[in-house]
Amino acid sequence: MPVPQHVFNPPFNIVRCSHVVLDVTDLDKSREFYDKIIGLHVEDADDTTVYLRASEEHQHHSVVLRKAETAACARLGFKVGNEDDLDKAASFFASNGILYSFVDRPYQGRTLHFTDPFGYRIELYAQMEKRPHLLRRYELYKGCHPQRLDHFNVFASELQDTVDFYARLGFRLTEYAEEDGEGGRIAAAWMHRKGNVHDFAITNGRGPRLHHFAYWVPTAMNILHLCDVMASSGLIANLERGPGRHGISNAFFLYVTDPDGHRIELYTCDYQTMDHDHEPLRWSLRDPRRQTLWGAPAPRSWFENGSPFTGQDVREPLFVADVTIAD
Amino acid sequence: MPVPQHVFNPPFNIVRCSHVVLDVTDLDKSREFYDKIIGLHVEDADDTTVYLRASEEHQHHSVVLRKAETAACARLGFKVGNEDDLDKAASFFASNGILYSFVDRPYQGRTLHFTDPFGYRIELYAQMEKRPHLLRRYELYKGCHPQRLDHFNVFASELQDTVDFYARLGFRLTEYAEEDGEGGRIAAAWMHRKGNVHDFAITNGRGPRLHHFAYWVPTAMNILHLCDVMASSGLIANLERGPGRHGISNAFFLYVTDPDGHRIELYTCDYQTMDHDHEPLRWSLRDPRRQTLWGAPAPRSWFENGSPFTGQDVREPLFVADVTIAD
Amino acid sequence: MPVPQHVFNPPFNIVRCSHVVLDVTDLDKSREFYDKIIGLHVEDADDTTVYLRASEEHQHHSVVLRKAETAACARLGFKVGNEDDLDKAASFFASNGILYSFVDRPYQGRTLHFTDPFGYRIELYAQMEKRPHLLRRYELYKGCHPQRLDHFNVFASELQDTVDFYARLGFRLTEYAEEDGEGGRIAAAWMHRKGNVHDFAITNGRGPRLHHFAYWVPTAMNILHLCDVMASSGLIANLERGPGRHGISNAFFLYVTDPDGHRIELYTCDYQTMDHDHEPLRWSLRDPRRQTLWGAPAPRSWFENGSPFTGQDVREPLFVADVTIAD
Amino acid sequence: MPVPQHVFNPPFNIVRCSHVVLDVTDLDKSREFYDKIIGLHVEDADDTTVYLRASEEHQHHSVVLRKAETAACARLGFKVGNEDDLDKAASFFASNGILYSFVDRPYQGRTLHFTDPFGYRIELYAQMEKRPHLLRRYELYKGCHPQRLDHFNVFASELQDTVDFYARLGFRLTEYAEEDGEGGRIAAAWMHRKGNVHDFAITNGRGPRLHHFAYWVPTAMNILHLCDVMASSGLIANLERGPGRHGISNAFFLYVTDPDGHRIELYTCDYQTMDHDHEPLRWSLRDPRRQTLWGAPAPRSWFENGSPFTGQDVREPLFVADVTIAD
Repeated sequence: MPVPQHVFNPPFNIVRCSHVVLDVTDLDKSREFYDKIIGLHVEDADDTTVYLRASEEHQHHSVVLRKAETAACARLGFKVGNEDDLDKAASFFASNGILYSFVDRPYQGRTLHFTDPFGYRIELYAQMEKRPHLLRRYELYKGCHPQRLDHFNVFASELQDTVDFYARLGFRLTEYAEEDGEGGRIAAAWMHRKGNVHDFAITNGRGPRLHHFAYWVPTAMNILHLCDVMASSGLIANLERGPGRHGISNAFFLYVTDPDGHRIELYTCDYQTMDHDHEPLRWSLRDPRRQTLWGAPAPRSWFENGSPFTGQDVREPLFVADVTIAD
Repeated sequence: MPVPQHVFNPPFNIVRCSHVVLDVTDLDKSREFYDKIIGLHVEDADDTTVYLRASEEHQHHSVVLRKAETAACARLGFKVGNEDDLDKAASFFASNGILYSFVDRPYQGRTLHFTDPFGYRIELYAQMEKRPHLLRRYELYKGCHPQRLDHFNVFASELQDTVDFYARLGFRLTEYAEEDGEGGRIAAAWMHRKGNVHDFAITNGRGPRLHHFAYWVPTAMNILHLCDVMASSGLIANLERGPGRHGISNAFFLYVTDPDGHRIELYTCDYQTMDHDHEPLRWSLRDPRRQTLWGAPAPRSWFENGSPFTGQDVREPLFVADVTIAD
Repeated sequence: MPVPQHVFNPPFNIVRCSHVVLDVTDLDKSREFYDKIIGLHVEDADDTTVYLRASEEHQHHSVVLRKAETAACARLGFKVGNEDDLDKAASFFASNGILYSFVDRPYQGRTLHFTDPFGYRIELYAQMEKRPHLLRRYELYKGCHPQRLDHFNVFASELQDTVDFYARLGFRLTEYAEEDGEGGRIAAAWMHRKGNVHDFAITNGRGPRLHHFAYWVPTAMNILHLCDVMASSGLIANLERGPGRHGISNAFFLYVTDPDGHRIELYTCDYQTMDHDHEPLRWSLRDPRRQTLWGAPAPRSWFENGSPFTGQDVREPLFVADVTIAD
Repeated sequence: MPVPQHVFNPPFNIVRCSHVVLDVTDLDKSREFYDKIIGLHVEDADDTTVYLRASEEHQHHSVVLRKAETAACARLGFKVGNEDDLDKAASFFASNGILYSFVDRPYQGRTLHFTDPFGYRIELYAQMEKRPHLLRRYELYKGCHPQRLDHFNVFASELQDTVDFYARLGFRLTEYAEEDGEGGRIAAAWMHRKGNVHDFAITNGRGPRLHHFAYWVPTAMNILHLCDVMASSGLIANLERGPGRHGISNAFFLYVTDPDGHRIELYTCDYQTMDHDHEPLRWSLRDPRRQTLWGAPAPRSWFENGSPFTGQDVREPLFVADVTIAD
């Protein structure tokens, strides 16, 4: 199957992934988890919503927790270059029959919400309330020292079409997993805008669902300490996979789940991809080092569980790959 | 079952574990593994034997590889305080019907070899050829920077008796795993002479066999790097368990196997135990954090595989614990 | 003094800093230093030139060592987006009276060399021979595990004009040090193209000279190990400054000098800057945490020594700041 | 000058260094420093006294802060093997004309206080109230994760006599710094009881004074983080020396000062010394790698400042070494 070619001059300029809005069933418990265990910083909170950010982020929030009856991913947020990128996006969506609307979001400037053809709920904005970053406020560091939101990873039931759609929006492929042989199908794709391995990864599976979102941490030592802290906090069951080294991305990783089962990756040390002639790296689905360089398999839950998007039906994938995967 | 009480004034003074002699079937391949992958330093070698040591060791060797038809553990070495401790040991063995003999060993002074009542082959010595340590020779560091031999761990078919025997020799219990309930049997014991968690651990199972020997490394980062190096050297199958944090000992660990299946642990950051009133810590066999604080189970091979002692028959254990364990 | 405003749509697209070409007086000795001590990988070499790269770099070289009578920086290399950026650059230079020429460089595609108005010798290219990166070849890692070239830092005698010139080329300011009070002059500027703190930093001082070039390493532990290795290799005098934490950039750093006195920084863990509304951070020259967050001053050599550019006269700076600085 | 020979069978058995009692002028401020910045755990406190311990310590306290008019070291505590060692000690002191008395100390069993011939105030005990250690309570870890008290270092005005006295008490020499040439005098000595580099180091200088006490931390990363936290907490002036690698002991270190100027070392990764034939390592005073393997000199304050012992006059040293030192 042909590797998707991204568009060098996309219809509007997405700069990077920015934030995730999660529906959670016990707001206090979730706040406690992200604040005390993971170590994000609460910037604002009321009875129904908590806004948190990581240490290097100037932006007001990179995770928003909303009190809800049912756990879900409410939406994913991406930051665009300038205000006029929002108008260009609206124009593009209008021309392509994609539902969108300008919405009001606290702490954000003009925000364009759209639901893509596959059911992912996404919002775009150019400006968010800024606060001084906390990077040099080491006296406030806690948890695993999360530094910035790094990427989203979603399950897609129509994988090739989803990848093609985001390639049209300018997302560039860096790595992909493919069935062997002629006509082998792509089973997972890692795509970026900001110049490292990914802002957005797309994995074959029951979709649309969020597989995980990831925070960058300074070093593997922060990840090992998080394991220790979760173990001694009665959260062994929330240590889902890792720590380990990915083959894909070369990053050191850990996957944990929050009180509602939303999955968070702690991630460090991938590589740069901003060269115009950077070529995507192909992995065979049969190479076990793809998921974990050290060979350890991921648990079943990791292939099966994900967060549905609020109000979106989940569909079976168009095909089942030789080997079920996600990273 | 009563916790064994060690003898404060043992019949002779064992200072610490010192070295292991391994029978290996491909001397070149094993040398390559310990030298290039693990990072020990070859001190002497000929066609049949290779002597290696770690960076802080003044002693000539802490691992000896011997070319052999069959893989086995030839013997475990312990260092005693002074020459007269060897004579005291001989006297003790003679009084207790234990087979022993003074033997010649290259690079070692007077050496007393004995086979304990359970079949472990052990040698004692007070003096070994000294070489300047390599601790500050950072330009020679390689592999995972092994610093010193830390401990041995053996499978015992007569666990309680074995523990009692070594308690008579002055080994002090620091941690143990026990079946729950009245009459619960000890299923594993960690015992020391040198002042940290162990020099010698004894695990219920088919014995006598060596479960593993362990090298201390400076930090967890050295262990993570070893995983990366082994993965990129085609040695994924030799990454048996970990990395992770032990509940028992609190150490950060990795278990790897050498080309013959001998198991090596890389180990760092346990704690001090030299206080005379230091009390052993009991673990229930049902507590999953015992083996891995983070909850990950050990693979089946880890409970089953071990190195027999040269010339010794292996026996089934006297009992099968509720939960098979070893750490 | 007004903070320079970078051009969002520059005349041509520089993607990132790429490589440095150094004149060295003892080729073997310098090769040994970069290969064995720093841990770069020699890709090609002959009697007069050695080409090296770091582990994540696909490009053939990021340091080129040339045998010469006198130590100097021969040129700095930047990568542009596409071939037509070279033509746009040529056109821009022609219109602005800047000397340039297309030159042949081994392993590089079409290369445009220019000398900027201040005497810095720079070359631009879009394509260089590619080699599989070594990121997952952990068995080849050595030295301090350098991962990629991160930035250049130069002394400028006409600081404000130099900053303004590179702002016209699209370099964006992220941090700067300034004299206090009205009319306070900028004394140092950190500017980027690739989305982290800098590709190019410019420091007030005798110029044009190269202050240092920097490699990104995975963690601070790699930097501490390099200190140990250099100390035990008789290279204490080459450990010029650090290790420590910069206030500026927040990176963990070490400065070392090569056998000719060329200065290399090992650098890790700065932050992202690709947002269009990212605002530069001002530091007062009087804030000691600017250079080293922990307060330790830099040695005199660090303010005074630098590598002249081959064939370029060095000039005194237009002004002497209240406090001499560079980072 | 002859290297002191320690006594293998000392008159009583000191097991290890145990605790330090400090007079501080602002109890709240000092408590805040040790609790929040260093990361020790407050076990008990009232208006005049605060008791703290580190994570692996079962004992009730390893630092005691006492509200006082004047900052001083009230005493150093060592743990002995058993109760009868206290009686043996009393007998030894009586025979040797050393002032001692049995005293009541909260949370301690029978305690023997003595003032040695040089003015150091020391107390011995065999039993202290035990509390479950916090080693696996990672959710309580804070500061630089101090794990256990490791050693004391004192200034001595009569260096050789002081070393000889402690050698008689069974302290064994591991490293020492000496003037070069015939008749060269020992200028500093590192002596241990517990099996690593030291429990007690003695440095030529104005004495009796406490130079520093040291806590073991798990890795260098904990030390780097402490630097970051102190810098961002307005405590740059309290970062006195380091971080760096000692030549002596090979440990990674940092020296900080508390609000009264008492000096604390954070220390990790030295080596074992329990072999009976372990030979002391000599350093020439002229070798700069002795203090810092990387060559960086210590600041003047580090050679000059120390904490006097409560009620003891400070004397000039008997000689001034070629090079003033302490480590």
